[in-house]
Amino acid sequence: MENLITSTKNPKIRLLEELQQKSAERRRRGLFVVEGRRELAHCVEAGFEVDTLFLCPSLSGENVEVPDGCRVFEVTEEVYRKLAYRGTTEGVIAEVRQKKQTLEELSLPARPLIVVLESVEKPGNLGAVLRSADAAGVSAVIVCDPLTDLYNPNLIRSSLGAVFTVPTAACTSDECIAFLKQNNIQILTAQLQDSHLYYNTPMTGPTAIVMGTESTGLTEQWRQAADAHIRIPMLGRLDSLNVSVSAAILMFEAVRQREGIA
Amino acid sequence: MENLITSTKNPKIRLLEELQQKSAERRRRGLFVVEGRRELAHCVEAGFEVDTLFLCPSLSGENVEVPDGCRVFEVTEEVYRKLAYRGTTEGVIAEVRQKKQTLEELSLPARPLIVVLESVEKPGNLGAVLRSADAAGVSAVIVCDPLTDLYNPNLIRSSLGAVFTVPTAACTSDECIAFLKQNNIQILTAQLQDSHLYYNTPMTGPTAIVMGTESTGLTEQWRQAADAHIRIPMLGRLDSLNVSVSAAILMFEAVRQREGIA
Repeated sequence: MENLITSTKNPKIRLLEELQQKSAERRRRGLFVVEGRRELAHCVEAGFEVDTLFLCPSLSGENVEVPDGCRVFEVTEEVYRKLAYRGTTEGVIAEVRQKKQTLEELSLPARPLIVVLESVEKPGNLGAVLRSADAAGVSAVIVCDPLTDLYNPNLIRSSLGAVFTVPTAACTSDECIAFLKQNNIQILTAQLQDSHLYYNTPMTGPTAIVMGTESTGLTEQWRQAADAHIRIPMLGRLDSLNVSVSAAILMFEAVRQREGIA
Repeated sequence: MENLITSTKNPKIRLLEELQQKSAERRRRGLFVVEGRRELAHCVEAGFEVDTLFLCPSLSGENVEVPDGCRVFEVTEEVYRKLAYRGTTEGVIAEVRQKKQTLEELSLPARPLIVVLESVEKPGNLGAVLRSADAAGVSAVIVCDPLTDLYNPNLIRSSLGAVFTVPTAACTSDECIAFLKQNNIQILTAQLQDSHLYYNTPMTGPTAIVMGTESTGLTEQWRQAADAHIRIPMLGRLDSLNVSVSAAILMFEAVRQREGIA
């Protein structure tokens, strides 16, 4: 079979590994890597275009749906295990074409609930925020001045596919602030100083919840752009919540106030 | 110096590694391992007794407070790096005596807020729940039929020391249900079926929030023991929240309803 790859040194396998490992390579080629059947299904459902599908039939079984118009290669178990994070399951890995993730591409409802993350560093944290954002029915997650790209494999994995189901955009903080002001979306910044308890702050109107990094918090630019500063009360001895946990608490307070309607 | 350890094969180092790696060994010797200055400070403050302290002076600096009555050994950087998870920081690692973690030892306020986790598997998840429980000022976290011990190093690490600041107990589900009923503490089980929205459920009285594993949920025993079943609305496409995120959302709803007062 001409489409069978048996060597881990095959140039196509090398290229795929580069996409997994290097954000510069993802940017240059406009592609990224998705592993796992469920993740790939979410990705296709969200309108992403699969460029190349690598199948390991002995692991994937026979009933794999092949998306329209993509190239398909079969790989041996040895090759698959070298590529895959979860070596022994699934048998499906794909190169997928990136979409534009600009503010202009976002289509928002009348009363959006947006989560903004400034300079988030850890792909795992961003993935966890996206997973909760999916559950809360958030309208969009915007990452400002990100230190990781949205197509990082750890991010996709920790999001369980929410990176495909939740509308996302990446931009500078300047652009994001201008966008929110222009669209009359109130800016609520999460910060400990000079702030109100989050549950006393109305979130039923168009709202953006803005969070900084765990280590340094939000920049002055965001604090000044805010309509209100909000905080989660810290009632313990450690004064510390994971950023994805904080984000979830704030998103679900909006859900509660809106009685579930986004 | 007679208390200087220079070999990674020193028997004391071997014993410490066994404590890190084996829960059976922790149980047998009644000890566990704490790494890092802040974690150790929380541990001592919470009344734990340090048995043996291993210091790497070139990493720890000079102003390390030595708890009363503990043995102290100095180790070389090579030895320290072999022991430590975070190899290049801190320079402090200790063997600490376990405390009893029984229901009888818990001292609860008049209107306790308790989090119960059934059969939690991943130490990292339990640690993350404890971290949020500290922030929410929870009265106690009870683990039922646990598949990990509370002195697992990953758990201590992911809790950032909350395993010391939050009162904890381990027991069977039978014992826990009897304890809660006896103390007139309402049992709210988190489950998707036959349940009320969590934010419509009063949590101002004595309350236990009970959660199962991400994969299988709660056992029938708990569902039947419940005073009410509660659920977090799932408004997205994935129907999935991390257990530590779900726990945090529920705990902070109790905080909101109680206006911060535990």
